[in-house]
Amino acid sequence: MTILNQFEMQHAIPYYECDASGHLTVAMLFRLLILASEQHSDALKVGPAAVKAYGGGWVIINYAGELTALPREGTTITIGTQIAAYNRFFVVRDFWVRAATGEELVRLQGLFAFMDLTKRKMVTIPSALIAPYQLTESRRLPKVPRPLTLEQPDPAWQGQAYRVRFFDIDLNNHVNNAVYFDWLLDPLGSEFLLHHLLVHVKMKYDHEVRAGEQVTSRFVTTPASDRVVTHHQICNSAGLAAEAEFEWVPA
Amino acid sequence: MTILNQFEMQHAIPYYECDASGHLTVAMLFRLLILASEQHSDALKVGPAAVKAYGGGWVIINYAGELTALPREGTTITIGTQIAAYNRFFVVRDFWVRAATGEELVRLQGLFAFMDLTKRKMVTIPSALIAPYQLTESRRLPKVPRPLTLEQPDPAWQGQAYRVRFFDIDLNNHVNNAVYFDWLLDPLGSEFLLHHLLVHVKMKYDHEVRAGEQVTSRFVTTPASDRVVTHHQICNSAGLAAEAEFEWVPA
Repeated sequence: MTILNQFEMQHAIPYYECDASGHLTVAMLFRLLILASEQHSDALKVGPAAVKAYGGGWVIINYAGELTALPREGTTITIGTQIAAYNRFFVVRDFWVRAATGEELVRLQGLFAFMDLTKRKMVTIPSALIAPYQLTESRRLPKVPRPLTLEQPDPAWQGQAYRVRFFDIDLNNHVNNAVYFDWLLDPLGSEFLLHHLLVHVKMKYDHEVRAGEQVTSRFVTTPASDRVVTHHQICNSAGLAAEAEFEWVPA
Repeated sequence: MTILNQFEMQHAIPYYECDASGHLTVAMLFRLLILASEQHSDALKVGPAAVKAYGGGWVIINYAGELTALPREGTTITIGTQIAAYNRFFVVRDFWVRAATGEELVRLQGLFAFMDLTKRKMVTIPSALIAPYQLTESRRLPKVPRPLTLEQPDPAWQGQAYRVRFFDIDLNNHVNNAVYFDWLLDPLGSEFLLHHLLVHVKMKYDHEVRAGEQVTSRFVTTPASDRVVTHHQICNSAGLAAEAEFEWVPA
Protein backbone atom coordinates (compact mmCIF):
# COMPACT_ATOMS: atom_id res chain seq x y z
CA MET A 1 0.00 0.00 0.00
CA THR A 2 2.77 2.41 0.86
CA ILE A 3 4.54 1.35 -2.30
CA LEU A 4 1.52 2.14 -4.48
CA ASN A 5 0.92 5.45 -2.82
CA GLN A 6 4.44 6.75 -2.79
CA PHE A 7 6.57 7.76 -5.74
CA GLU A 8 10.04 9.23 -6.00
CA MET A 9 12.08 10.31 -9.02
CA GLN A 10 15.55 11.71 -9.44
CA HIS A 11 16.26 14.86 -11.39
CA ALA A 12 19.57 16.45 -12.40
CA ILE A 13 19.20 20.24 -12.56
CA PRO A 14 20.55 21.76 -15.80
CA TYR A 15 21.63 25.41 -16.03
CA TYR A 16 18.47 26.40 -17.86
CA GLU A 17 16.19 25.53 -14.93
CA CYS A 18 18.03 28.07 -12.75
CA ASP A 19 17.89 31.82 -12.27
CA ALA A 20 20.72 34.38 -12.14
CA SER A 21 21.64 33.19 -8.62
CA GLY A 22 22.20 29.61 -9.85
CA HIS A 23 19.22 28.16 -7.93
CA LEU A 24 16.28 26.25 -9.34
CA THR A 25 13.50 28.73 -10.10
CA VAL A 26 10.26 28.51 -8.11
CA ALA A 27 8.26 28.02 -11.32
CA MET A 28 10.53 25.12 -12.25
CA LEU A 29 10.13 23.57 -8.79
CA PHE A 30 6.34 23.45 -9.33
CA ARG A 31 6.78 22.05 -12.85
CA LEU A 32 8.87 19.24 -11.36
CA LEU A 33 6.31 18.51 -8.61
CA ILE A 34 3.61 18.13 -11.26
CA LEU A 35 5.95 15.93 -13.33
CA ALA A 36 6.43 13.67 -10.28
CA SER A 37 2.67 13.42 -9.69
CA GLU A 38 2.14 12.60 -13.38
CA GLN A 39 4.81 9.92 -13.30
CA HIS A 40 3.32 8.55 -10.06
CA SER A 41 -0.13 8.23 -11.63
CA ASP A 42 1.40 6.89 -14.85
CA ALA A 43 3.13 4.12 -12.87
CA LEU A 44 -0.35 3.08 -11.66
CA LYS A 45 -1.77 3.37 -15.20
CA VAL A 46 -3.96 6.35 -14.26
CA GLY A 47 -1.66 9.00 -15.75
CA PRO A 48 -2.47 11.86 -18.12
CA ALA A 49 -3.60 9.53 -20.95
CA ALA A 50 -6.10 7.72 -18.67
CA VAL A 51 -7.32 11.03 -17.25
CA LYS A 52 -7.88 12.38 -20.75
CA ALA A 53 -9.95 9.31 -21.63
CA TYR A 54 -12.44 10.48 -18.95
CA GLY A 55 -12.70 13.87 -20.69
CA GLY A 56 -11.25 15.50 -17.63
CA GLY A 57 -8.16 16.85 -16.04
CA TRP A 58 -6.69 17.47 -12.59
CA VAL A 59 -6.68 21.10 -11.58
CA ILE A 60 -4.64 22.56 -8.76
CA ILE A 61 -6.60 24.70 -6.32
CA ASN A 62 -3.87 25.72 -3.88
CA TYR A 63 -0.41 24.90 -2.58
CA ALA A 64 1.20 25.55 0.80
CA GLY A 65 4.46 24.58 2.40
CA GLU A 66 8.03 25.20 3.46
CA LEU A 67 11.29 25.61 1.58
CA THR A 68 14.57 25.12 3.41
CA ALA A 69 16.54 25.89 0.27
CA LEU A 70 16.16 25.75 -3.48
CA PRO A 71 18.63 23.30 -5.04
CA ARG A 72 21.49 24.53 -7.19
CA GLU A 73 22.49 23.99 -10.82
CA GLY A 74 24.35 20.74 -11.39
CA THR A 75 22.95 18.96 -8.33
CA THR A 76 20.69 15.92 -8.45
CA ILE A 77 17.55 15.98 -6.33
CA THR A 78 14.92 13.42 -5.37
CA ILE A 79 11.34 14.56 -5.85
CA GLY A 80 8.66 12.59 -4.01
CA THR A 81 4.89 12.60 -3.82
CA GLN A 82 2.05 10.68 -2.19
CA ILE A 83 -1.67 11.15 -1.77
CA ALA A 84 -2.19 12.43 1.79
CA ALA A 85 -5.99 12.02 1.64
CA TYR A 86 -8.92 12.19 -0.76
CA ASN A 87 -12.71 12.36 -0.93
CA ARG A 88 -15.23 12.41 -3.81
CA PHE A 89 -14.16 15.86 -4.95
CA PHE A 90 -10.63 16.51 -3.77
CA VAL A 91 -7.18 15.00 -3.49
CA VAL A 92 -4.51 16.36 -1.16
CA ARG A 93 -1.01 15.48 -2.33
CA ASP A 94 2.20 15.67 -0.31
CA PHE A 95 5.36 16.72 -2.14
CA TRP A 96 8.94 16.71 -0.95
CA VAL A 97 12.37 17.39 -2.42
CA ARG A 98 15.58 15.97 -0.97
CA ALA A 99 19.19 16.85 -1.76
CA ALA A 100 21.66 14.05 -2.56
CA THR A 101 22.86 14.40 1.06
CA GLY A 102 19.40 13.35 2.25
CA GLU A 103 18.52 16.83 3.52
CA GLU A 104 14.89 17.76 2.93
CA LEU A 105 14.78 20.97 0.89
CA VAL A 106 11.06 21.35 0.22
CA ARG A 107 7.87 20.06 1.89
CA LEU A 108 4.57 21.12 0.32
CA GLN A 109 0.94 20.07 0.03
CA GLY A 110 -1.37 20.66 -2.90
CA LEU A 111 -5.16 20.45 -3.12
CA PHE A 112 -6.43 19.11 -6.45
CA ALA A 113 -9.91 18.77 -7.95
CA PHE A 114 -11.14 17.06 -11.10
CA MET A 115 -12.51 19.15 -13.95
CA ASP A 116 -14.75 18.14 -16.83
CA LEU A 117 -12.83 19.75 -19.69
CA THR A 118 -15.89 20.08 -21.92
CA LYS A 119 -18.17 21.68 -19.33
CA ARG A 120 -15.21 23.51 -17.70
CA LYS A 121 -16.56 22.67 -14.24
CA MET A 122 -15.60 20.55 -11.25
CA VAL A 123 -17.03 17.00 -11.14
CA THR A 124 -16.66 13.98 -8.83
CA ILE A 125 -13.37 12.15 -9.26
CA PRO A 126 -13.85 8.99 -11.41
CA SER A 127 -13.29 6.13 -8.94
CA ALA A 128 -11.18 4.21 -11.48
CA LEU A 129 -8.58 7.02 -11.33
CA ILE A 130 -8.16 6.78 -7.56
CA ALA A 131 -8.70 3.03 -6.90
CA PRO A 132 -5.13 1.97 -7.89
CA TYR A 133 -3.68 3.92 -4.94
CA GLN A 134 -5.59 1.50 -2.61
CA LEU A 135 -6.45 4.19 -0.07
CA THR A 136 -9.56 4.69 2.04
CA GLU A 137 -11.66 7.77 1.32
CA SER A 138 -11.27 10.39 4.06
CA ARG A 139 -14.14 11.92 6.00
CA ARG A 140 -12.09 15.01 6.62
CA LEU A 141 -9.27 16.34 4.45
CA PRO A 142 -6.18 18.04 5.86
CA LYS A 143 -6.48 21.79 5.36
CA VAL A 144 -3.96 23.23 2.89
CA PRO A 145 -3.53 26.83 4.15
CA ARG A 146 -4.57 29.57 1.75
CA PRO A 147 -3.05 33.02 1.32
CA LEU A 148 -4.79 35.82 3.16
CA THR A 149 -6.93 37.90 0.78
CA LEU A 150 -6.02 41.53 1.38
CA GLU A 151 -8.09 44.55 0.51
CA GLN A 152 -7.15 45.97 -2.83
CA PRO A 153 -6.28 48.51 -4.18
CA ASP A 154 -4.03 50.16 -1.63
CA PRO A 155 -1.48 52.84 -2.60
CA ALA A 156 1.31 50.64 -1.21
CA TRP A 157 0.68 47.90 -3.82
CA GLN A 158 3.02 47.85 -6.81
CA GLY A 159 2.19 46.14 -10.07
CA GLN A 160 3.33 45.05 -13.47
CA ALA A 161 1.38 44.03 -16.58
CA TYR A 162 2.00 40.71 -18.36
CA ARG A 163 0.66 39.80 -21.77
CA VAL A 164 0.07 36.05 -22.19
CA ARG A 165 2.63 34.77 -24.68
CA PHE A 166 2.41 31.78 -27.00
CA PHE A 167 4.94 29.81 -24.96
CA ASP A 168 2.98 30.38 -21.71
CA ILE A 169 0.16 28.19 -23.08
CA ASP A 170 0.32 24.46 -22.46
CA LEU A 171 -1.34 21.41 -23.99
CA ASN A 172 -4.54 22.17 -22.02
CA ASN A 173 -4.83 25.46 -23.92
CA HIS A 174 -4.53 27.71 -20.88
CA VAL A 175 -1.60 29.40 -19.16
CA ASN A 176 0.47 26.71 -17.47
CA ASN A 177 0.15 26.87 -13.67
CA ALA A 178 3.90 27.33 -13.25
CA VAL A 179 3.95 30.54 -15.33
CA TYR A 180 2.02 32.32 -12.55
CA PHE A 181 5.08 32.01 -10.31
CA ASP A 182 7.20 33.97 -12.81
CA TRP A 183 4.47 36.62 -12.96
CA LEU A 184 4.22 36.71 -9.15
CA LEU A 185 7.94 37.00 -8.49
CA ASP A 186 9.22 39.16 -11.36
CA PRO A 187 7.67 42.43 -10.05
CA LEU A 188 9.69 42.07 -6.82
CA GLY A 189 12.78 42.96 -8.87
CA SER A 190 16.28 41.49 -9.05
CA GLU A 191 17.58 43.47 -6.04
CA PHE A 192 14.99 41.83 -3.77
CA LEU A 193 15.07 38.39 -5.43
CA LEU A 194 18.86 38.05 -5.34
CA HIS A 195 19.01 38.99 -1.65
CA HIS A 196 16.12 37.03 -0.17
CA LEU A 197 15.33 33.34 0.15
CA LEU A 198 11.77 32.11 -0.16
CA VAL A 199 10.97 29.96 2.90
CA HIS A 200 7.18 29.68 2.93
CA VAL A 201 4.66 29.56 0.08
CA LYS A 202 0.88 29.83 0.00
CA MET A 203 -0.55 29.96 -3.52
CA LYS A 204 -4.15 29.80 -4.65
CA TYR A 205 -5.52 29.62 -8.20
CA ASP A 206 -8.86 31.38 -8.55
CA HIS A 207 -9.54 31.03 -12.25
CA GLU A 208 -7.62 30.17 -15.37
CA VAL A 209 -5.97 32.68 -17.68
CA ARG A 210 -6.11 31.99 -21.40
CA ALA A 211 -4.38 32.89 -24.65
CA GLY A 212 -4.69 36.51 -25.76
CA GLU A 213 -5.28 37.90 -22.26
CA GLN A 214 -3.32 40.42 -20.23
CA VAL A 215 -2.88 40.19 -16.47
CA THR A 216 -1.60 42.50 -13.76
CA SER A 217 0.59 41.08 -11.02
CA ARG A 218 0.50 43.25 -7.87
CA PHE A 219 2.24 42.86 -4.55
CA VAL A 220 2.65 44.54 -1.20
CA THR A 221 5.45 43.97 1.32
CA THR A 222 4.75 43.63 5.04
CA PRO A 223 7.88 43.33 7.18
CA ALA A 224 7.18 41.01 10.13
CA SER A 225 9.99 40.67 12.72
CA ASP A 226 12.93 38.85 11.06
CA ARG A 227 10.89 37.72 8.08
CA VAL A 228 9.55 39.68 5.13
CA VAL A 229 6.06 38.70 3.96
CA THR A 230 4.87 39.60 0.48
CA HIS A 231 1.20 39.37 -0.57
CA HIS A 232 0.43 38.99 -4.25
CA GLN A 233 -2.60 39.14 -6.54
CA ILE A 234 -2.84 38.34 -10.23
CA CYS A 235 -5.88 39.85 -11.93
CA ASN A 236 -7.28 39.74 -15.44
CA SER A 237 -10.42 41.42 -16.80
CA ALA A 238 -12.58 38.80 -15.01
CA GLY A 239 -11.04 39.65 -11.62
CA LEU A 240 -8.75 37.73 -9.32
CA ALA A 241 -6.96 34.88 -11.13
CA ALA A 242 -4.48 33.93 -8.37
CA GLU A 243 -3.32 34.99 -4.91
CA ALA A 244 -0.14 34.21 -3.07
CA GLU A 245 1.57 34.88 0.23
CA PHE A 246 5.34 34.37 0.42
CA GLU A 247 7.68 34.51 3.41
CA TRP A 248 11.32 35.44 2.91
CA VAL A 249 14.53 35.59 4.91
CA PRO A 250 17.65 37.59 3.94
CA ALA A 251 19.96 35.59 1.61
CA MET B 1 40.53 11.49 -31.78
CA THR B 2 36.98 11.02 -33.01
CA ILE B 3 36.04 9.92 -29.51
CA LEU B 4 37.44 13.09 -27.94
CA ASN B 5 35.80 15.33 -30.46
CA GLN B 6 32.35 13.80 -30.44
CA PHE B 7 29.82 13.81 -27.65
CA GLU B 8 26.27 12.50 -27.43
CA MET B 9 23.76 12.63 -24.60
CA GLN B 10 20.24 11.33 -24.19
CA HIS B 11 17.37 13.48 -23.07
CA ALA B 12 13.77 12.57 -22.16
CA ILE B 13 11.44 15.45 -23.02
CA PRO B 14 9.07 16.42 -20.17
CA TYR B 15 5.75 18.22 -20.77
CA TYR B 16 7.18 21.55 -19.62
CA GLU B 17 9.74 21.75 -22.44
CA CYS B 18 6.91 21.64 -25.01
CA ASP B 19 4.50 24.17 -26.45
CA ALA B 20 0.71 23.95 -26.95
CA SER B 21 1.25 21.60 -29.93
CA GLY B 22 3.15 19.10 -27.75
CA HIS B 23 6.49 19.65 -29.53
CA LEU B 24 9.79 20.72 -27.98
CA THR B 25 10.00 24.51 -28.18
CA VAL B 26 12.70 26.06 -30.38
CA ALA B 27 14.14 27.93 -27.38
CA MET B 28 14.39 24.64 -25.48
CA LEU B 29 16.11 22.98 -28.46
CA PHE B 30 18.86 25.59 -28.31
CA ARG B 31 19.13 25.26 -24.50
CA LEU B 32 19.71 21.54 -25.00
CA LEU B 33 22.35 22.08 -27.72
CA ILE B 34 24.29 24.35 -25.35
CA LEU B 35 23.87 21.79 -22.56
CA ALA B 36 25.39 19.13 -24.84
CA SER B 37 28.34 21.36 -25.75
CA GLU B 38 28.91 22.13 -22.04
CA GLN B 39 28.81 18.45 -21.14
CA HIS B 40 31.16 17.71 -24.06
CA SER B 41 33.70 20.24 -22.84
CA ASP B 42 33.17 19.11 -19.21
CA ALA B 43 34.02 15.54 -20.22
CA LEU B 44 37.36 16.89 -21.51
CA LYS B 45 37.84 19.00 -18.34
CA VAL B 46 37.46 22.27 -20.25
CA GLY B 47 33.86 22.88 -19.25
CA PRO B 48 32.22 26.01 -17.80
CA ALA B 49 34.33 25.94 -14.59
CA ALA B 50 37.62 25.81 -16.55
CA VAL B 51 36.40 28.53 -18.92
CA LYS B 52 35.50 30.75 -15.97
CA ALA B 53 39.01 30.31 -14.53
CA TYR B 54 40.28 32.10 -17.69
CA GLY B 55 37.96 35.03 -16.93
CA GLY B 56 36.14 34.38 -20.15
CA GLY B 57 33.14 32.76 -21.70
CA TRP B 58 32.03 31.29 -25.00
CA VAL B 59 29.64 33.49 -26.93
CA ILE B 60 27.47 32.36 -29.79
CA ILE B 61 27.68 34.53 -32.90
CA ASN B 62 25.28 32.71 -35.21
CA TYR B 63 23.47 29.45 -35.87
CA ALA B 64 22.23 27.92 -39.13
CA GLY B 65 20.68 24.62 -40.06
CA GLU B 66 17.80 22.31 -40.87
CA LEU B 67 14.98 20.86 -38.81
CA THR B 68 13.14 17.80 -40.11
CA ALA B 69 10.85 17.78 -37.09
CA LEU B 70 10.83 18.93 -33.49
CA PRO B 71 10.56 15.97 -31.10
CA ARG B 72 7.40 15.42 -29.07
CA GLU B 73 6.67 15.32 -25.32
CA GLY B 74 7.50 11.97 -23.74
CA THR B 75 10.06 10.91 -26.37
CA THR B 76 13.75 10.43 -25.71
CA ILE B 77 16.20 12.07 -28.08
CA THR B 78 19.94 11.86 -28.61
CA ILE B 79 21.71 15.22 -28.82
CA GLY B 80 25.18 15.23 -30.36
CA THR B 81 27.92 17.76 -30.94
CA GLN B 82 31.44 17.97 -32.30
CA ILE B 83 33.86 20.73 -33.22
CA ALA B 84 33.76 21.03 -37.01
CA ALA B 85 36.77 23.39 -37.18
CA TYR B 86 38.50 26.12 -35.21
CA ASN B 87 41.09 28.87 -35.51
CA ARG B 88 42.59 31.35 -33.03
CA PHE B 89 39.35 33.30 -32.70
CA PHE B 90 36.47 31.02 -33.63
CA VAL B 91 35.05 27.55 -33.14
CA VAL B 92 32.43 26.05 -35.45
CA ARG B 93 30.38 23.36 -33.73
CA ASP B 94 28.14 20.78 -35.38
CA PHE B 95 24.95 19.83 -33.56
CA TRP B 96 22.48 17.07 -34.32
CA VAL B 97 19.39 15.55 -32.73
CA ARG B 98 18.20 12.02 -33.42
CA ALA B 99 14.90 10.36 -32.51
CA ALA B 100 14.93 6.95 -30.75
CA THR B 101 14.22 5.44 -34.20
CA GLY B 102 17.57 6.80 -35.43
CA GLU B 103 15.96 9.42 -37.64
CA GLU B 104 17.88 12.70 -37.70
CA LEU B 105 15.55 15.49 -36.59
CA VAL B 106 17.90 18.46 -36.44
CA ARG B 107 21.27 19.34 -38.03
CA LEU B 108 22.76 22.72 -37.17
CA GLN B 109 26.07 24.56 -36.99
CA GLY B 110 27.02 27.29 -34.56
CA LEU B 111 29.90 29.81 -34.70
CA PHE B 112 31.38 30.62 -31.30
CA ALA B 113 33.96 33.16 -30.13
CA PHE B 114 35.70 33.66 -26.81
CA MET B 115 34.96 36.77 -24.76
CA ASP B 116 36.94 38.35 -21.97
CA LEU B 117 34.15 38.89 -19.45
CA THR B 118 35.90 41.79 -17.72
CA LYS B 119 36.75 43.76 -20.87
CA ARG B 120 33.51 42.55 -22.58
CA LYS B 121 35.45 42.01 -25.82
CA MET B 122 36.52 39.15 -28.03
CA VAL B 123 39.97 37.67 -27.37
CA THR B 124 42.01 34.75 -28.74
CA ILE B 125 40.85 31.34 -27.51
CA PRO B 126 43.13 30.09 -24.68
CA SER B 127 44.94 27.11 -26.26
CA ALA B 128 44.46 25.00 -23.11
CA LEU B 129 40.69 25.12 -23.69
CA ILE B 130 40.94 23.70 -27.21
CA ALA B 131 43.94 21.33 -26.93
CA PRO B 132 42.01 18.42 -25.32
CA TYR B 133 39.93 18.01 -28.51
CA GLN B 134 43.20 17.05 -30.32
CA LEU B 135 42.25 18.79 -33.54
CA THR B 136 44.38 20.73 -36.03
CA GLU B 137 43.72 24.45 -36.36
CA SER B 138 41.95 25.25 -39.62
CA ARG B 139 43.14 27.76 -42.17
CA ARG B 140 39.64 28.31 -43.37
CA LEU B 141 36.47 27.83 -41.32
CA PRO B 142 33.23 26.51 -42.80
CA LYS B 143 30.83 29.41 -43.32
CA VAL B 144 27.76 29.31 -41.08
CA PRO B 145 25.12 31.14 -43.17
CA ARG B 146 23.74 34.35 -41.70
CA PRO B 147 20.23 35.78 -42.02
CA LEU B 148 19.75 38.40 -44.71
CA THR B 149 19.61 41.90 -43.20
CA LEU B 150 16.53 43.59 -44.65
CA GLU B 151 15.88 47.31 -44.83
CA GLN B 152 13.89 48.49 -41.85
CA PRO B 153 11.37 49.91 -41.12
CA ASP B 154 8.90 48.85 -43.77
CA PRO B 155 5.12 49.20 -43.25
CA ALA B 156 4.75 45.42 -43.72
CA TRP B 157 6.78 44.70 -40.57
CA GLN B 158 4.83 43.85 -37.43
CA GLY B 159 6.25 44.08 -33.94
CA GLN B 160 5.81 43.46 -30.28
CA ALA B 161 7.58 44.90 -27.24
CA TYR B 162 9.21 42.68 -24.60
CA ARG B 163 10.46 43.88 -21.23
CA VAL B 164 13.40 41.83 -19.92
CA ARG B 165 12.16 39.85 -16.91
CA PHE B 166 14.13 38.58 -13.92
CA PHE B 167 13.87 34.97 -15.11
CA ASP B 168 15.24 35.86 -18.59
CA ILE B 169 18.62 36.65 -17.01
CA ASP B 170 21.13 33.83 -16.62
CA LEU B 171 24.25 33.30 -14.54
CA ASN B 172 26.24 35.48 -16.97
CA ASN B 173 24.02 38.43 -16.03
CA HIS B 174 22.56 38.93 -19.48
CA VAL B 175 19.48 37.65 -21.27
CA ASN B 176 20.00 33.97 -21.97
CA ASN B 177 20.53 33.29 -25.69
CA ALA B 178 17.55 30.94 -25.82
CA VAL B 179 15.11 33.64 -24.64
CA TYR B 180 15.58 35.45 -27.97
CA PHE B 181 13.82 32.56 -29.73
CA ASP B 182 10.67 33.09 -27.62
CA TRP B 183 10.81 36.80 -28.45
CA LEU B 184 11.35 36.04 -32.15
CA LEU B 185 8.54 33.53 -32.46
CA ASP B 186 5.82 34.87 -30.13
CA PRO B 187 4.85 37.82 -32.42
CA LEU B 188 4.00 35.34 -35.21
CA GLY B 189 0.91 34.36 -33.17
CA SER B 190 -0.61 31.02 -32.24
CA GLU B 191 -2.59 30.70 -35.49
CA PHE B 192 0.66 30.76 -37.50
CA LEU B 193 2.77 28.80 -35.01
CA LEU B 194 0.27 25.95 -34.62
CA HIS B 195 -0.09 25.53 -38.40
CA HIS B 196 3.50 25.78 -39.60
CA LEU B 197 6.62 23.71 -39.03
CA LEU B 198 10.00 25.39 -38.79
CA VAL B 199 12.36 23.69 -41.25
CA HIS B 200 15.30 26.08 -41.60
CA VAL B 201 16.90 28.47 -39.11
CA LYS B 202 19.43 31.27 -39.50
CA MET B 203 19.99 33.23 -36.32
CA LYS B 204 22.59 35.89 -35.56
CA TYR B 205 23.33 37.62 -32.25
CA ASP B 206 24.48 41.21 -32.74
CA HIS B 207 24.84 42.41 -29.17
CA GLU B 208 23.69 41.31 -25.73
CA VAL B 209 20.54 42.49 -24.01
CA ARG B 210 20.73 43.08 -20.27
CA ALA B 211 18.50 43.35 -17.20
CA GLY B 212 16.11 46.31 -17.13
CA GLU B 213 15.98 46.75 -20.91
CA GLN B 214 13.07 46.61 -23.29
CA VAL B 215 13.29 45.17 -26.79
CA THR B 216 11.08 45.17 -29.85
CA SER B 217 10.77 41.98 -31.89
CA ARG B 218 9.70 42.70 -35.48
CA PHE B 219 9.05 40.38 -38.38
CA VAL B 220 7.96 40.38 -41.99
CA THR B 221 6.59 37.42 -43.96
CA THR B 222 7.73 36.70 -47.52
CA PRO B 223 5.91 33.82 -49.18
CA ALA B 224 8.31 31.97 -51.48
CA SER B 225 6.82 29.13 -53.58
CA ASP B 226 5.75 26.31 -51.22
CA ARG B 227 7.68 27.71 -48.26
CA VAL B 228 6.98 30.71 -46.09
CA VAL B 229 10.04 32.72 -45.08
CA THR B 230 9.92 35.07 -42.08
CA HIS B 231 12.60 37.68 -41.40
CA HIS B 232 13.04 38.91 -37.85
CA GLN B 233 14.86 41.68 -36.01
CA ILE B 234 15.20 42.27 -32.29
CA CYS B 235 16.18 45.82 -31.36
CA ASN B 236 16.88 47.61 -28.11
CA SER B 237 17.86 51.25 -27.59
CA ALA B 238 21.40 50.50 -28.86
CA GLY B 239 20.08 49.14 -32.17
CA LEU B 240 19.99 45.65 -33.64
CA ALA B 241 20.45 42.95 -30.96
CA ALA B 242 19.60 39.91 -33.10
CA GLU B 243 18.41 38.93 -36.56
CA ALA B 244 16.84 35.74 -37.80
CA GLU B 245 15.51 34.15 -40.96
CA PHE B 246 13.15 31.20 -40.63
CA GLU B 247 11.69 28.91 -43.28
CA TRP B 248 8.36 27.18 -42.65
CA VAL B 249 6.15 24.58 -44.29
CA PRO B 250 2.44 24.06 -43.53
CA ALA B 251 1.89 21.71 -40.55
